Order: sequence, then structure tokens, then C-alpha cells
Amino acid sequence: MRDVAVIGTGKTAFGAFADRDLRSLAVEAGEKCFRDSSVWPSQVESFFLGNFAGPSFTGQNHLAPYVSTALGMTGIPSTRVEDACASGGSAFYHAWREVASGMGDIVMVVGVEKMTSRSTAQVTEILAAAGDMDTEGRAGATFPGLFAMIARRHMYQYGTTREHLAAVAVKNHENGALNPQAHMRKRITMEQALAGRPIADPLTIYDCSLISDGAAAVMLAPLERVREFTDSGARVLGIAQASDFVALDQKQDITTFPALRAAAARAYGMAGVGPRQIQFAELHDCFTIAEIIAMEDLGLVERGRGGYFTAEGGTRRDGPLPVNLSGGLKSKGHPVGATGVAQICDVVKELREGRELGLAQNLGGSGATCVVSILGRV
Amino acid sequence: MRDVAVIGTGKTAFGAFADRDLRSLAVEAGEKCFRDSSVWPSQVESFFLGNFAGPSFTGQNHLAPYVSTALGMTGIPSTRVEDACASGGSAFYHAWREVASGMGDIVMVVGVEKMTSRSTAQVTEILAAAGDMDTEGRAGATFPGLFAMIARRHMYQYGTTREHLAAVAVKNHENGALNPQAHMRKRITMEQALAGRPIADPLTIYDCSLISDGAAAVMLAPLERVREFTDSGARVLGIAQASDFVALDQKQDITTFPALRAAAARAYGMAGVGPRQIQFAELHDCFTIAEIIAMEDLGLVERGRGGYFTAEGGTRRDGPLPVNLSGGLKSKGHPVGATGVAQICDVVKELREGRELGLAQNLGGSGATCVVSILGRV
Repeated sequence: MRDVAVIGTGKTAFGAFADRDLRSLAVEAGEKCFRDSSVWPSQVESFFLGNFAGPSFTGQNHLAPYVSTALGMTGIPSTRVEDACASGGSAFYHAWREVASGMGDIVMVVGVEKMTSRSTAQVTEILAAAGDMDTEGRAGATFPGLFAMIARRHMYQYGTTREHLAAVAVKNHENGALNPQAHMRKRITMEQALAGRPIADPLTIYDCSLISDGAAAVMLAPLERVREFTDSGARVLGIAQASDFVALDQKQDITTFPALRAAAARAYGMAGVGPRQIQFAELHDCFTIAEIIAMEDLGLVERGRGGYFTAEGGTRRDGPLPVNLSGGLKSKGHPVGATGVAQICDVVKELREGRELGLAQNLGGSGATCVVSILGRV
Repeated sequence: MRDVAVIGTGKTAFGAFADRDLRSLAVEAGEKCFRDSSVWPSQVESFFLGNFAGPSFTGQNHLAPYVSTALGMTGIPSTRVEDACASGGSAFYHAWREVASGMGDIVMVVGVEKMTSRSTAQVTEILAAAGDMDTEGRAGATFPGLFAMIARRHMYQYGTTREHLAAVAVKNHENGALNPQAHMRKRITMEQALAGRPIADPLTIYDCSLISDGAAAVMLAPLERVREFTDSGARVLGIAQASDFVALDQKQDITTFPALRAAAARAYGMAGVGPRQIQFAELHDCFTIAEIIAMEDLGLVERGRGGYFTAEGGTRRDGPLPVNLSGGLKSKGHPVGATGVAQICDVVKELREGRELGLAQNLGGSGATCVVSILGRV
């Protein structure tokens, strides 16, 4: 297995862009990535597109060649990967695998979602299809409802409080306010977060990530070739994808995600590092409770301590373990298929600015898919 | 790169099954594949699901773990691959790549589509999303219309006739009548085929493949381990996936598919065989004209001669180059995501029954994705 490097990234701003379609977003991110990596379209050997529900959101399917040809690539394998909200992470995982195995040298990943052309009710319904429609869907459950149950149970088992959840939101909005590409660049106070409009008790509007349009792109190459392309590449030290039941009722304990733990164990093992060595992380905060559980399942804090640690400032920009320096899904935005790829872009950005070891964690549904990636400086 | 073997297959019957949902079809094919390959779910290291439009047809997304957990697998990477009507072929390609590269040993592929819960008009609209909705879709083009234009142009350039097209249908129905798992086990005469109800001139109902429910599964392992599992494995000699523009208007010549030619050239090169050595083929006859073009782009006949060769009986069961012994998409049925995987199952079946070298060709849209696989006996 070869070492793999990220040799370039590209991102659109995340937001609600009435005048932009899926393809133009994907092309913008892809072209930025070409420039950043000094790669020409003709050099790319394989293309992966992470997209969750383009056909439902936009009416367009067969999205991989629809995007890759618009970026100037024909003849190569061009494949869409769908794994709910982990579609981007999964696309990155499969691209990494292609380079790591030696099957290809220059492999490109784009993640994209165009969501805001639908009403919030329609979006919620389309997102609900990432749960088990035979059971959860039939019962009327949507993701805010499922994660509200998870939050409630976490509160019961570990004493997590509304203030703990709100602390995640306040911190992520603080970070997002500093990110020029974030969807909602707005600081919020603890009082605001606690007084948010209820969505699914105990979650308020401030506990839920945003509905966004956006795209992100990453170029991969063997580590040994990184200097041909860039002086600021990042190295993929460890990566893994794992799966679990789609329906919450099939889980033994809904406050922990076995797929997340499995992916984390494999990624740490491959990287040869443990949670204590991770300096910063981009975590999948689709809901505030999800960030807390991710920290616990990744071993970054003790089981049940995620809320307390957050409330104590542990994950703030100036804390011992900054989480979601980008603003996270909460403030940066969550164009579903783009999210997992954007997390990699955001980790690479921090590495380029001086940090040394970061982790990205991308979750699908209520934990049925998880991808964990650990990156370091070249 | 390691040699890869198919160590087992499994298929449901194809048809319109009002009492079956997507998951039960996928599970039936998967369980047959477990039995056929003597593999336990706990041995599978990675899972790929080929599915085109499950969310649109059934309302369920996040389909890979939805299926793989129902087959008894958790913890492993479980990934849905979408490449329009080539979703199954692409899933097989990525699974092959994982084993060939040494990243995994036992890798499973399931292809599935549940289509008949929607009306024919709804199905046609969902399928149209595999074309370019910004141009073709906006103009009202559906796939019968696009392939009718292709057929008309082929007639103009090469003298292909309605009789040539009908000969494809008659031959595939003859083969399908012998396949107990085929959707439409009915022989048709040349007169019937020529007098079919017009769909999009020059195509009649007999030129169009079926709207079907069904699933197929394949298990892959390194060739060196094949005897642990089976005495009747098949060997993947060559395989490639390629891409091209989604919209027909961006093609120089609509009577040939560059992605098909590119995939074929690479698959032949890898296998070290040429078209003359291919003994039989499962080709993507979504429309009769597509089978004719596939034969030409694969080099199995000279450019423009596909229709003539078919009318002369060249591709019949008892001809020099049997095509679609299974009945093809035309008579066996075309549950979109299952098709590419089912083609592999059908080639393996013929190899087990004594033939020695077969080819499968799976097309997405009007040629934007193509996967070509060449298989031989172990």
C-alpha cells in the first residue's frame, strides 16, 4: 500500500444560491482544485462524485459524467458514490483507495449538493430517506426527531444538558463567523441558543445544521509524487469507512455509533496514532449532539464527557482540542454530498497554516455509515 | 495487480412483483450468492451496491447499508455506486478493483432496482434523469426518443433497416423464452415485431427493453483462493469503465459511443484477447439499436454491419457469435441497477456450462458511462 497525499483542494462558498445550479457549483470547486493542484483535466485517471440526493433535489441523475465532462474529462471511470450524508467522505475514501493500491496516480473527488431549490419541508422529506423508510419513515420520523431521541437518551445516561448542546452551537458559530466561505457568518450567544425556536425537543433551531448549496473538491496523488504538484500537500495517514444498521431501533445503545468506532479504530491503527495525538478535528455536527457523540466515539474525550468538555471550552479555537474550526455543518453549512469532501479541504487548510495532525469524521444517517480520515503535513 | 475470480453468483427472477420490495429482492439475490460461493457474511470485507434510482422509485436512499445489514454484514465499508443504467457494471468494476489491487480479498456486489411500483409514465420520467435535464430533459426528450434518433441516424449512415432492429428483438425473445428467470418468456415473430405499437419512430414497443423488478449478486475473490470456495469459478480477464458526455448533442457521431470503445480497448488489452476470440456476449440492449451499436463499438462486427449480421442469424444461439443468450434486457428484463451485475451472472452461467470466453457490456444513459468485462473459465 502506497502513501497518499492531497495535492490540492477547492471549495465554493456554502449558502443559498438561487442563481446557481448543481453543475456550476461542482465545476467551480473542481476548477479551483485544478488550479490549486497544478493538475490538468487530461492528467486525471479516475473521478469520484460524492452526492446524496441530486436526483431528488434537482431532477438530474447520472451525475458523475454530468460533472466530470463539464470539467473537461472524458474517457476515464467517472463514478457517483452515495452513502447519505457520508457520500463525500465515502467518495474520498474510494479515491484514496485507488491511489493507495497503485491502481491510479491522479484521482479527483468532487462533492456537491444543491438543496435550496426545494422548500424546507421537501428537504426534510428528502433527507428522511437516509433513515429506514419501512420503519422510521413510516412512523413519521425525520432526522431532527431521531437526533432528538439520541440527545434525550444521552442526557439521561450522562447528565448532558441543554447548555452543553448550546455550547456546541455557540462555539461553531464563533468559528463560522471567521470563515469567509461559511453559510451563516453570525455569532450567537448562549442565551440565544437556549431560547431558539424548538424543532424537536430538546433540539432547537440552533442545534440543527443548515440547508445549503455548495461543492468541494480534492486531488489525490501518491506521496512520492507530491513535489511535482505542490509544496503544501497533506498526507493521508489513516482512513477507514464502516457501516451499521440504518434504523435506530436496531441499535443496542443509541448514544454511540458502532460504525464510527469501527472506522476510528481502523484509521488510528493505520495512522499509528491515538486520539491524544489529534490536534484538531472537523466533526460531523449535523446536530449539536452528533458532535458530542463523535468526540466520545473517537476517544477524544471519555464516554459521556463530550458535553461537559465542550461547555468548559475544551473544543474552542483557543482550547486544547479545537473542533470545527471551519464552523462545522452548523455554521459553515451542510450541502450534504459536499460535506465530507469539504471537511478534508478544511483540515488541509489548517495543516497548511501550521497545525500538524488533524482528523475529519463524516457520518451518514443516524450512524449507518461513517468515514474517518487522519491527515498530517507532508 | 492480482487475478480476480467470480466465486459465486445469485439472481432473483426478473419481473413485476407487486408483493416484493427493493430490500427483499436484494436479500434474495445476496443469500443465493452466499450459498453459491460458500461465503459467510462475516467473511465479506467490502460491499458495493449498484442502484440507479432507488430513492425516486421507492423513497428509500442510503441503500448500501440498508441492504448490507439485512444480509448480515456490519462494520465493513458499504457503498452505493450510481452510474445510470451502468450502476451495476460500475459496482462490479469497483469491487474487482478492490480485489485486484490487493486492498480486499472477499468483496460482494449486489445490483438491484424496484421499478414497477411506479406508472410507466413515472418510470420514463425517472429514467430520463439519466440524460442531460438542462438540455435534453428541458426539450422533453426521453430515452426512447434519444435512441430513436440514434437508430434513425444509423439507418441513414449504414442502411440499417426496421427488419434489422426487429431481428434483435426476435432473437432476444427466443433466448428469453428459454430462461426461467426472464421477465417476458414469450417468443415473437418478425411480423409481430414489425407491427409493434410505435413508441418513438422507428422504435416500436418490441424495440424497447422492459421495466422490471429484480436483483443480482456476485462474490469476488483473488484467483489464487478460488478453490477454497468453488470448483466452478470464473476468471475476470479484462475489465474497464469509461465516461463521456451525458447529452447526445455533445457527441460528434451519435451512432457510436466513445466511452464504449474506450472501455472495450482497455478490457481487450488487459485480457490479451481481441474481439475475434470472444465466443459469446451479454450486451446492453436497452433498445434494439443499442445491441447493434455495441457489437460494432466492441469490434465484434465491422462498423455499420451490426444490423445485417443480426438479420443473417450471426448472433443467434446457434450462430457464430451468440449475443444475449439470457434474453437480454429486452426479454430477460431490465431492473436498471441489477442489469450490469446480472450480465456477469449470465456470462458465468455460460462458462459453467462449457463456453470458454464471454464478454459483458453495460451502458449508462445514451453512452455517458460504459463498463466492459471479459470473463473466462478458471
